[in-house]
Amino acid sequence: MSVAKIVELVGSSPNSWKEAAQNTVTEAMKTIRGIHGIEIKDKTATIDQTTGKINQYRAAVKLSFGVEH
Amino acid sequence: MSVAKIVELVGSSPNSWKEAAQNTVTEAMKTIRGIHGIEIKDKTATIDQTTGKINQYRAAVKLSFGVEH
Amino acid sequence: MSVAKIVELVGSSPNSWKEAAQNTVTEAMKTIRGIHGIEIKDKTATIDQTTGKINQYRAAVKLSFGVEH
Amino acid sequence: MSVAKIVELVGSSPNSWKEAAQNTVTEAMKTIRGIHGIEIKDKTATIDQTTGKINQYRAAVKLSFGVEH
Amino acid sequence: MSVAKIVELVGSSPNSWKEAAQNTVTEAMKTIRGIHGIEIKDKTATIDQTTGKINQYRAAVKLSFGVEH
Amino acid sequence: MSVAKIVELVGSSPNSWKEAAQNTVTEAMKTIRGIHGIEIKDKTATIDQTTGKINQYRAAVKLSFGVEH
Amino acid sequence: MSVAKIVELVGSSPNSWKEAAQNTVTEAMKTIRGIHGIEIKDKTATIDQTTGKINQYRAAVKLSFGVEH
Amino acid sequence: MSVAKIVELVGSSPNSWKEAAQNTVTEAMKTIRGIHGIEIKDKTATIDQTTGKINQYRAAVKLSFGVEH
Amino acid sequence: MSVAKIVELVGSSPNSWKEAAQNTVTEAMKTIRGIHGIEIKDKTATIDQTTGKINQYRAAVKLSFGVEH
Amino acid sequence: MSVAKIVELVGSSPNSWKEAAQNTVTEAMKTIRGIHGIEIKDKTATIDQTTGKINQYRAAVKLSFGVEH
Amino acid sequence: MSVAKIVELVGSSPNSWKEAAQNTVTEAMKTIRGIHGIEIKDKTATIDQTTGKINQYRAAVKLSFGVEH
Amino acid sequence: MSVAKIVELVGSSPNSWKEAAQNTVTEAMKTIRGIHGIEIKDKTATIDQTTGKINQYRAAVKLSFGVEH
Repeated sequence: MSVAKIVELVGSSPNSWKEAAQNTVTEAMKTIRGIHGIEIKDKTATIDQTTGKINQYRAAVKLSFGVEH
Repeated sequence: MSVAKIVELVGSSPNSWKEAAQNTVTEAMKTIRGIHGIEIKDKTATIDQTTGKINQYRAAVKLSFGVEH
Repeated sequence: MSVAKIVELVGSSPNSWKEAAQNTVTEAMKTIRGIHGIEIKDKTATIDQTTGKINQYRAAVKLSFGVEH
Repeated sequence: MSVAKIVELVGSSPNSWKEAAQNTVTEAMKTIRGIHGIEIKDKTATIDQTTGKINQYRAAVKLSFGVEH
Repeated sequence: MSVAKIVELVGSSPNSWKEAAQNTVTEAMKTIRGIHGIEIKDKTATIDQTTGKINQYRAAVKLSFGVEH
Repeated sequence: MSVAKIVELVGSSPNSWKEAAQNTVTEAMKTIRGIHGIEIKDKTATIDQTTGKINQYRAAVKLSFGVEH
Repeated sequence: MSVAKIVELVGSSPNSWKEAAQNTVTEAMKTIRGIHGIEIKDKTATIDQTTGKINQYRAAVKLSFGVEH
Repeated sequence: MSVAKIVELVGSSPNSWKEAAQNTVTEAMKTIRGIHGIEIKDKTATIDQTTGKINQYRAAVKLSFGVEH
Repeated sequence: MSVAKIVELVGSSPNSWKEAAQNTVTEAMKTIRGIHGIEIKDKTATIDQTTGKINQYRAAVKLSFGVEH
Repeated sequence: MSVAKIVELVGSSPNSWKEAAQNTVTEAMKTIRGIHGIEIKDKTATIDQTTGKINQYRAAVKLSFGVEH
Repeated sequence: MSVAKIVELVGSSPNSWKEAAQNTVTEAMKTIRGIHGIEIKDKTATIDQTTGKINQYRAAVKLSFGVEH
Repeated sequence: MSVAKIVELVGSSPNSWKEAAQNTVTEAMKTIRGIHGIEIKDKTATIDQTTGKINQYRAAVKLSFGVEH
């Protein structure tokens, strides 16, 4: 059986990086069991070129989970 | 003609790092066209030594823009 | 007399990384004088495995203070 | 929707590192669609202390797949 | 107000890397005040495939300027 | 006269990384004299998406050869 | 409650780097409980410009202590 | 008593890198007790200049063993 | 078929580093097709010990060429 | 035959790092022939928590010896 | 007797980086014997703020010389 | 005029690394003015193969001195 060593996901939110991180975890928990922690690796954003406002906050999130090898 | 390869700016806000990032983009768009994304490089803050509260949130923001070379 | 060169603390908050950073500074100022700035080094979080929600935001904060050597 | 950025798995085989890599891919394809390539990151092995023979070949395999972000 | 932390530009010349560096500075001074020094980061060139001659010298130039933060 | 400092080639095989390395050397010896050793730098593979089997083993091979400078 | 992650101190002695390390620990134990080990990170010295003799030995010492997070 | 922290050996085989790794372990177990695992660090080979064939596979193998310090 | 991934050559000139770079390209084009660019990696020189003058300019040049893998 | 590439040992002394280094060499020479030099990699110490004194000096020592490969 | 391991000097010229390198060697040969080669480490320049022209070319030059240790 | 940027010397002593550092400074002060500090970069030693004793302590010492550029 193969076991996960590193899983890093990118999630997003129109509101904040904090919500982007939560969304990533919510999505990941649909398929990965035992996630007990996360680490934020990168924070990026896309810009609405008309208004100059950040319109999507994106967080690259590294998951920690229970399976060890 | 010379073209920009890397531009990294530091912006600030009295309220949050998120607002500091937005302020940096708003400022940068006055002189740079075609900014489509940002990456947060460093987050620092200054401390009010009387109250012990963070009084200025600062974000070093790396800009991505359209001109390629 | 020995002088501090690097001090890095980890603080937490149930609400946000921003509050975790502030809590770390508040705690540190009880024993260290002259803290004038901070730098966020790592942001992690723990997950409530029943709800899938982030239940503790943690920030590793590097302190800058006045004593020089 | 969150998208995978990095997925690195560890698979094993009693016979060879080559088979360990194939086993890792076979296992991963049960849950991840669109894997088109792999990169071998680390090769380790465990030793049978009675015979001194390698009894398990393990390969850490980084997956490349189609979803881009 | 946001302040520049790092600005790196790429300039070119048909004659030499030295001229490419000077052209980059000349161009940059149209919009950035207070440039007092440069550092050459990369030197590349493109090749005319018919003659095999370097036909464009390019220099990536990191600017140092007065505004500090 | 210009002399080679680093030459790194990528070769492949449908059967194994070992054969991919040998194929790279065989190919390289058609144009480079005095190859006395190799170092494996990266091992990758492509996956047949129908069968889930590795269908091409690829090895990036750094050549060592006699000419010194 | 915030917990220390890294504490690195610089201590000195007029006699030796060994004594500088001991002095650093002695000083640190006045305010930090549970120090069980140290690691020497840097050794520097200042020179008496009249005699050319080292007049102060300085050691940057990283502390390991019991509180874990 | 001094204890081993890192031991890295280079072994070889005329047939394959897998056999070179096994040969290294076999040799090491004559003098080191408690080897429970290995990690392959580098794979090199020497070339027979007449035939262009790899004639010696060499593996640099880092040993993991029980004694801790 | 194996394809080149990295080729780095060292060329020289008695007159300048610019000419050393051109000489390297000229030499390389005798055997490598489709070179479209170069990057200067290192610049060294040898010194005439009698006169103290640089007598050979040497440039390590990394080639970019069309074949992709 | 497999040959040693890197051997790094940790030795200790109740008196000084210098003696810890000598002890490491003395111990190593019981099983390794031809040690001609050492390099100090890390210096650590353990602290007597009652007295606050360093009670064990430890040196990680990398050995250089004659067998080459 | 102590022997030089690394000597890196910064020289300058109003005309070119090539001349700055030569000036550095000329200066160094007044006190160091046996310099047989140099390596250019950094190239910087200062800018005349009135004219926008490079007015001083500076080269950090690492010296290679005969004494070995 | 060229100015020193980095000078690193290796000195030795039959007795201790501390004395090796002092000897390096004493030697350096014969030709370099204004040395105000040192940093120890590497500590090595040679071994007497008959007795197994360290017979020469060597310290690579990086000098700090007044001339700035």
